[in-house]
Amino acid sequence: LSFQPADPAFEARVRASFARQTIMVTIGATLTRVAPGEVEIRLPWRADLCQQHGFLHAGVVATIADSAAGYAAFSLFAADASVLTSEYKLHLLAPAEGELLIARGRVLKPGRTLTIAETEVYAVKAGSEKLCAKLIGTLVQLAARSDLPRSG
Amino acid sequence: LSFQPADPAFEARVRASFARQTIMVTIGATLTRVAPGEVEIRLPWRADLCQQHGFLHAGVVATIADSAAGYAAFSLFAADASVLTSEYKLHLLAPAEGELLIARGRVLKPGRTLTIAETEVYAVKAGSEKLCAKLIGTLVQLAARSDLPRSG
Amino acid sequence: LSFQPADPAFEARVRASFARQTIMVTIGATLTRVAPGEVEIRLPWRADLCQQHGFLHAGVVATIADSAAGYAAFSLFAADASVLTSEYKLHLLAPAEGELLIARGRVLKPGRTLTIAETEVYAVKAGSEKLCAKLIGTLVQLAARSDLPRSG
Amino acid sequence: LSFQPADPAFEARVRASFARQTIMVTIGATLTRVAPGEVEIRLPWRADLCQQHGFLHAGVVATIADSAAGYAAFSLFAADASVLTSEYKLHLLAPAEGELLIARGRVLKPGRTLTIAETEVYAVKAGSEKLCAKLIGTLVQLAARSDLPRSG
Repeated sequence: LSFQPADPAFEARVRASFARQTIMVTIGATLTRVAPGEVEIRLPWRADLCQQHGFLHAGVVATIADSAAGYAAFSLFAADASVLTSEYKLHLLAPAEGELLIARGRVLKPGRTLTIAETEVYAVKAGSEKLCAKLIGTLVQLAARSDLPRSG
Repeated sequence: LSFQPADPAFEARVRASFARQTIMVTIGATLTRVAPGEVEIRLPWRADLCQQHGFLHAGVVATIADSAAGYAAFSLFAADASVLTSEYKLHLLAPAEGELLIARGRVLKPGRTLTIAETEVYAVKAGSEKLCAKLIGTLVQLAARSDLPRSG
Repeated sequence: LSFQPADPAFEARVRASFARQTIMVTIGATLTRVAPGEVEIRLPWRADLCQQHGFLHAGVVATIADSAAGYAAFSLFAADASVLTSEYKLHLLAPAEGELLIARGRVLKPGRTLTIAETEVYAVKAGSEKLCAKLIGTLVQLAARSDLPRSG
Repeated sequence: LSFQPADPAFEARVRASFARQTIMVTIGATLTRVAPGEVEIRLPWRADLCQQHGFLHAGVVATIADSAAGYAAFSLFAADASVLTSEYKLHLLAPAEGELLIARGRVLKPGRTLTIAETEVYAVKAGSEKLCAKLIGTLVQLAARSDLPRSG
């Protein structure tokens, strides 16, 4: 599938919105690729983001997987629209262990209001990638709604 | 529904496992209630856990919702078993705004291998609770598997 | 939760739409209750609707569970709107065995465009009900769109 | 991905089990392909399987999508095991209209107890295929459990 972005400045718009997600700084996630309908986010393993067995917590996997799907959708939206996750399902397929997680989101079905997107998350261990999670979810395009925080 | 825990020391076991989830310290979540098949986790709002609009990121909501469901299931497991989330679905129903999130997980259907559990997450704003998310997921009981981290 | 229907004639509208679902006649399902945000559908067991073990096929469970959620949402819609299922998740909790299935759908969160609804499906065996499936899904309100079939 | 079936007679086993699903005869679905970890099911459009707009009902889409995923998993199971769907999520991406539906299921992650599988459903209209639904679900391998109906 290849998509035509509605907004030629989609990459700058995605990067600016991602930069406003304070959680990404807190957990050390970075946006490593933006293309029309596709986004990649990377997260190095850290001891303070784990569940009880020393693997990255499913919530951390979910955080980057959801954002990768959300920004994959957002990359195709109109310049003045905002994005919201309505729901997603996450399958945890293997432990989130190793040096690094890579979340690759892509749009499955774009739409005026609803966009369906998928993310595959890979755990990189000793340099080799293994599929560790898969997300499929529904993203909502809020037309003519600023992506900036609501001012106080 | 009321459940009979297999392990009378279930509460101490849940609390010890939760204490090993380093992510919970990182995001400031606390375990506020443990009962047979039911767990409550609370998380105060923090500026460094947000998405682009200044609400708590869906990944943070997912982190406590998933753990509430997981420990609700774990509370009914055998003393020497471990727990794993296989999959969940999360609906985001309202913005995660306000002072505090409260995630209440409960077992819907216990099982020897698979347990189905649900979590409702409430956003507390100006003291009043509003349902902001709902999770339903599948938890796996790993028999005779230590809940402790695997040693190096 | 109690809901105020936008259309006072909601029950007649739900019943008329259900009557146009030819699949319901084919599988023998009937609409047994309509209230604001709530719908009940019943289906007697039949040997020609089974999976390989002689239980009702999950697809039959899904058919009535999805329609119960859809019509629960539809009951709250505007008089000239149509309904579409965008996605749902179905947990199969116990075999769909016995004399009868009862699917009870209810709205969890109504919305102008998206409504989230849940259905619990009970298997009635020797007169007693057992929860056999749970669905949670997203219904879309298509404004000013006839619920009638598109003419050729 | 390519899979090694545990049972060399997997195709005959899948076909025999499918033949015991009476619902498939009722709705006119046929099993058109069986490979290790992959199954295809086809269903011609019929006026008595529709929802209110004259498209095939989502429950019919779900019936063949779920069975395609289930038999994709079952094709990799041991010769004496049975299969059960634990849960699935179904996204409806386009109307199920046209002459024919084709459901293609494939295993995403095989496992001793839990297998994750996906199905893509295509609507064939005027000879061209369009993705109309996607399912992802959890299948359970019941070891040493006959796939035959339980006798009375």
